[in-house]
Amino acid sequence: MSILRWIRIKMIAINQIGVYIPEKRVSNLDVLEKFETDESFIRDKIGVVQRARKQSNEKASDLCIKAFENLQSKAPINLEDIECCVVVTQNPDFNIPHTSAIVHGAINLPESCACFDISLGCSGYVYGLSIIKAFMQANDMKKGLLFTSDPYSDIIDEDDKNTALIFGDAATVTLLDSMQSGLVPLGFDFGSKGAGYKSLMNKDKLFMNGRAVFNFTAATVPVSINKVLSKLSLDKSEIKRWYLHQGSKYIVDTITTRAELKPEKVVFDMYDYGNTISSSIPILLSKDLSSFSEGDKIGLSGFGVGLSWATAIFEKI
Amino acid sequence: MSILRWIRIKMIAINQIGVYIPEKRVSNLDVLEKFETDESFIRDKIGVVQRARKQSNEKASDLCIKAFENLQSKAPINLEDIECCVVVTQNPDFNIPHTSAIVHGAINLPESCACFDISLGCSGYVYGLSIIKAFMQANDMKKGLLFTSDPYSDIIDEDDKNTALIFGDAATVTLLDSMQSGLVPLGFDFGSKGAGYKSLMNKDKLFMNGRAVFNFTAATVPVSINKVLSKLSLDKSEIKRWYLHQGSKYIVDTITTRAELKPEKVVFDMYDYGNTISSSIPILLSKDLSSFSEGDKIGLSGFGVGLSWATAIFEKI
Repeated sequence: MSILRWIRIKMIAINQIGVYIPEKRVSNLDVLEKFETDESFIRDKIGVVQRARKQSNEKASDLCIKAFENLQSKAPINLEDIECCVVVTQNPDFNIPHTSAIVHGAINLPESCACFDISLGCSGYVYGLSIIKAFMQANDMKKGLLFTSDPYSDIIDEDDKNTALIFGDAATVTLLDSMQSGLVPLGFDFGSKGAGYKSLMNKDKLFMNGRAVFNFTAATVPVSINKVLSKLSLDKSEIKRWYLHQGSKYIVDTITTRAELKPEKVVFDMYDYGNTISSSIPILLSKDLSSFSEGDKIGLSGFGVGLSWATAIFEKI
Repeated sequence: MSILRWIRIKMIAINQIGVYIPEKRVSNLDVLEKFETDESFIRDKIGVVQRARKQSNEKASDLCIKAFENLQSKAPINLEDIECCVVVTQNPDFNIPHTSAIVHGAINLPESCACFDISLGCSGYVYGLSIIKAFMQANDMKKGLLFTSDPYSDIIDEDDKNTALIFGDAATVTLLDSMQSGLVPLGFDFGSKGAGYKSLMNKDKLFMNGRAVFNFTAATVPVSINKVLSKLSLDKSEIKRWYLHQGSKYIVDTITTRAELKPEKVVFDMYDYGNTISSSIPILLSKDLSSFSEGDKIGLSGFGVGLSWATAIFEKI
């Protein structure tokens, strides 16, 4: 066996993604008057026509379990093979225990399975991919699950125009596998502006200074995209598609312009369910996963709460 | 340069540990009557004579910052060199944002520093060491900070005998460094019994089924210790000291007996401040760090909330 082949076998790749978006929708078109806004603002700036809404008694772990059922319908999974279960959330079922423990029990993962939660918001999926991949490789694990689940409907003030029109509930689970084909990371860029954390926080209900978060994102994410490309000596023309966190249509458009990305390469799809925080990127990715050819490179970038960002380039092997 | 030397330089090692234990103490000897107990039970079973208690307005990040000040007094730190800041907590300042973002801003870490929180309880330090080491190595980072901070006094019911006599407040920060000397991990064992999570959880106040948690620990941790030794082909005689999570004197004694560890090799030191959750092991380790010689091997094991456990062997290089 060649060394290259051996290294590839040892690589941890994205194999499949399960998604759960609750069926119920709340329409932004029904609250135009309440918020003194109009349909063009809803469609062209926010980019959310309706928001996905969980049942009020559903918790983060319940959404994870439904995403896992979706994963099982796409990929046959032997539960005994799962060596690691990570949940990215900032709306855990409880603060004690971690939500990954509850998921572990509910889906009957083996006792030898390592479980932990990562607390991050909209940058959480990209961070999470690096953390779980590194953890699995370091501990010689072959199969792992990376969940994202942030049911924001529990913390949104429905009368707050800055937050009420944006967020939707969803969860995803990504199966990572030590395999010979799939999406593997080529490199990451991470960053933090902790001094700005008050722009997006939750005491009783979510507070967002939309202008401050927008300015942070518009200034930071294009730089991060160029940084990771430069680190990998890649040109933008070599990237097939960009999966940016779906914060709003306006922010995705702004990053596209400022980072000089070709608009036709930048995925946008949140009209029907909203900004699903750490689930936004894996939801998009799940739709395209079977369309990639060997050698295709894609870019991911998540940004928000913290303030925090993470950008990565993945390649299909 | 030999390959072995190169690999060692690339290794991430524990370099130094900063500790913060609040000065204030609450004595268990003052509540013997209230809980119908006696001093021998307090000393010989619980192993906590007094509990460290933070100011009521101090949050997890405040304790982290004080632990960092202690670290700076032990090791000169150039803030610009810190590439990663991880906080292990289940009592974050807020659920949004992560506490690591608040710490990042407060101690002026650079924008290029990656930040995330890990939600785990008493197994959190051992898990955290594996996660941060793997994350740093995968992303070619040279210096990182691993904080533990779980101010349980905020969630304890002072009238609940099952929890009121045990926990103390504290925080620690471990400096991990890509260096030629320090403690490096040889291997880990992780596990989860998520189905048992209700034995230790927080809705409004901490609930603990002490008997269930004890039985879980006594059955699981000795097996985990033997598993990691066997994986590394090491004999117990080759381990210099054992740093078990200081859950209570009774649980440390029970693990020592069941795992057939030599009592003189098992550190016990919580009389003066209590069970400090994920901070218990790094507090013990900080006292012994300068005493290790090259080639010394030590064992760490954390267990609790989840239910969860993690065991590791480290070697001084």
